[in-house]
Parts: sequence; C-alpha cells; structure tokens
Amino acid sequence: MQPPYYAVIFTSVTNESNEGYSEMAQKMQSLAQGQEGYLGMESARNEIGITVSYWKSLESIRSWKQNLEHLEAQSKGRSSWYKSYTVRIALVEREYSFDLE
Amino acid sequence: MQPPYYAVIFTSVTNESNEGYSEMAQKMQSLAQGQEGYLGMESARNEIGITVSYWKSLESIRSWKQNLEHLEAQSKGRSSWYKSYTVRIALVEREYSFDLE
Repeated sequence: MQPPYYAVIFTSVTNESNEGYSEMAQKMQSLAQGQEGYLGMESARNEIGITVSYWKSLESIRSWKQNLEHLEAQSKGRSSWYKSYTVRIALVEREYSFDLE
Repeated sequence: MQPPYYAVIFTSVTNESNEGYSEMAQKMQSLAQGQEGYLGMESARNEIGITVSYWKSLESIRSWKQNLEHLEAQSKGRSSWYKSYTVRIALVEREYSFDLE
C-alpha cells in the first residue's frame, strides 16, 4: 500500500475463558472488510494478541469504531474476553517489503 | 506511553527451516532494549509474525536499523529465515487502554 495511510495497532491479553471469542473475531474481520476506507488486516496471537488493521483515514477508523455490531463486540470484549488491551492509532509514513518470490 | 512517538510494524512469513531464528530474535530484542530512544516491543506469531517496536524518534529508528549486529541479523533473515516481510514506520498519534486490574 502507498503511504500515507493509517494503522490501528490493537494489542490484547485475553482471559482463560474465551468462549465465542474466535467466532466474534472472525465476524468482526468480515464486517471490517465491508467498511468504507478499509485497506487490510493482519493478526497473530500467542501469549498476547496483536491485530493491525489499515485504513484510508481517521474518518474511516472513527466510523468503524462506532459501527453498531462492532460496539457490541467491544462491550462483550471488555466484559468477557479481555484482561487488558491497548489501541494505538498511527499514521504510516513509510513502508518497504522483502519478498523471495 | 504518551504520543506522539513512533511504531515500527514488522510483519513476516518465515520459511519452514528456522534454525537459530528464535535465538537471534531474542538477541535482537535485548540489543534493541539498549538502544537510544527505545520505548518497548511486542511480538506474536502463529501463521504470520507481527513485531511492533516503539521508538522516540525517526532518528532512533534509523540508528537501530544501522546497528552492525542488527544489519547482520537482517541479512541472515533475508538469506535464511524469511519468505517475506514488510516494515511500516508509523507515527502514533493516539493511544488508549483498557485494564481490568
């Protein structure tokens, strides 16, 4: 992707009880894909989880944050799944890649 | 941490042969911690790896990128461990957290 664009860096620690979590994560990923300004998403998890989503503008991030189903997921996340999380909103200024193929 | 500060978002796909990789990752993490301007680092890996490191300034990121031992690790990474990777340099503008404790 051609900078500048935005990244939302979401780092989290989940509880032991994570019933319904991965279904919800999947659902939110599909929902985000349909949002205006969505550019992509990458996730990895072992001790902590890191999800980075990419967006055209602050405006598109704001709309996604306020999406009704997403608001419900956020609320459920705080009440059931997450021990802690941090959200960072960052302007990607530079990007470079290495690819063997 | 109080924004503004910088995040380096490193996403990677490794080869099947990863001999020596986790030792090197560990060593680079220790080395980064001693760098001027280093603020922190978070990592997670399953299908892909995501490492986000945090820095005071572009200057501190540049110094870390040019560190001799780190240059060797980067070279070894391209020749042996990584199938592909992307580096994104991003200015963190906002940060907020949730913590149950």
